[in-house]
Amino acid sequence: MYFYKDGFLEKKDLHISPDDRGYYFGDGVYEVFRVYNGRIYEQEAHMQRLQKSASEVRIALPYSSQEIENILSKLVHENGIVEGTIYMQITRGEAPRAHPFPKDAQPVMLAYCTDVKRPTATIQSGIHAISFEDIRWLRCDLKTLNLLPNVMAKQAALDHGVQEVILHRSGTVTECSASNFMMVKDHILYTHPANNLILHGITRAVVLRLARALQIDVKEEPFTLQQLQQADEAFITGTTVEVTPVIHIDGKPIGSGEPGPITRKLQNEFERTFAV
Amino acid sequence: MYFYKDGFLEKKDLHISPDDRGYYFGDGVYEVFRVYNGRIYEQEAHMQRLQKSASEVRIALPYSSQEIENILSKLVHENGIVEGTIYMQITRGEAPRAHPFPKDAQPVMLAYCTDVKRPTATIQSGIHAISFEDIRWLRCDLKTLNLLPNVMAKQAALDHGVQEVILHRSGTVTECSASNFMMVKDHILYTHPANNLILHGITRAVVLRLARALQIDVKEEPFTLQQLQQADEAFITGTTVEVTPVIHIDGKPIGSGEPGPITRKLQNEFERTFAV
Repeated sequence: MYFYKDGFLEKKDLHISPDDRGYYFGDGVYEVFRVYNGRIYEQEAHMQRLQKSASEVRIALPYSSQEIENILSKLVHENGIVEGTIYMQITRGEAPRAHPFPKDAQPVMLAYCTDVKRPTATIQSGIHAISFEDIRWLRCDLKTLNLLPNVMAKQAALDHGVQEVILHRSGTVTECSASNFMMVKDHILYTHPANNLILHGITRAVVLRLARALQIDVKEEPFTLQQLQQADEAFITGTTVEVTPVIHIDGKPIGSGEPGPITRKLQNEFERTFAV
Repeated sequence: MYFYKDGFLEKKDLHISPDDRGYYFGDGVYEVFRVYNGRIYEQEAHMQRLQKSASEVRIALPYSSQEIENILSKLVHENGIVEGTIYMQITRGEAPRAHPFPKDAQPVMLAYCTDVKRPTATIQSGIHAISFEDIRWLRCDLKTLNLLPNVMAKQAALDHGVQEVILHRSGTVTECSASNFMMVKDHILYTHPANNLILHGITRAVVLRLARALQIDVKEEPFTLQQLQQADEAFITGTTVEVTPVIHIDGKPIGSGEPGPITRKLQNEFERTFAV
């Protein structure tokens, strides 16, 4: 069962208008929520980010936060989701194709759930990655439907036989194709500051909070690919990948080439935040 | 009458799948063709650009050039378009939402015509513009559906009471929200080189060709907002705007504040390329 426009319906009955600005322009914003044990994880943080993305691209949310939460909750319940994700997007609405904001269009909301298991195998083993040039626009903090560069980057990783890209701008590491990136060097946890060049990941924020609670030094500052080569540990964070170790980059091992102790500690702590 | 997937149908019968990657990711490419006197203008150049965009984002065109040209021609004919535009886009296809290219998805083509008159009033009078930061990705040469920054820029112009933005990266002028930009200084025509930072406009190429034939010196090199303030003339080029003078930028007149003589000469020549 999907939510679309202002009601619940089956996917087969759901038809997007060719006038939807999401289709012509990618003119919309989205969120992906995680469901653990039938409950929506960090819902409040996701809702705040949705509001920020929508506000910055000047799309008026068609429902209040409470109404959206009720819709998502009903989707989880009616679809019997115990472990999964909720995808939701809101586009600027339907109007004949023209760049200016349409006068009377109503924003269009789409939402649905999917059964998704935790990627426990890669959380355990870690993944390999390649470095890749970050050519995205300069508002990567907004979660919009303009995702073609992310798609191309992710596919480049797969074509190289690895699972992820480490994006960089002129050598400065930003994040990954659909997750944030962190490294550990001399017991200090480094990650790119939450400015316009990265998505302000919910799991990123959770992990930094956990790290500080564990008395791990955190430095939100940019680092280079060269510095990354000298890292002791590295991992990605994201709503579905949680905390997944990165053990090889560009064919070279990070640290010992195995998931490191601080990564493991953060994984354990992260698991405790939703498993209790 | 629209073309969609592999047939012609009425717009009301056209339903986009919620799994269309154009809707989730803006994962597609497009072209806008101009129709003058019932004929498609510069069709070959548009087809070549479509092929380039599709190739660079690795979407396999679902039809040959000849098949696409036949489809467009039928749309123009059946819809009785004498003066108008054809919009066409091709997305990577339908698949459950996931960044990697889907294995078996078929690219989805959508195309339709619209009656559009030449904007003779603004071609005559010229328009006003503001300078605006260019925050787009670094493949602006590809005509993709990731158009949110263009939409935001165009709306910013309208909000300022003007018709267009002059985009710049750290002061270097690139182009406009949906057109290329040129300036004239001391009888020399300047425009940004056709690299990854601007769309390689069909009308841009036509105008440069006409300028050279008219013995006007052409310099395809970057210039700054500061240099632009000293320009004698300025104009935009595009499929629907043709050659439209820009007479004020950021509230200050360009040259005399009226469309200039070289602009007028190029407008006249341009009109001759399709009106004969």
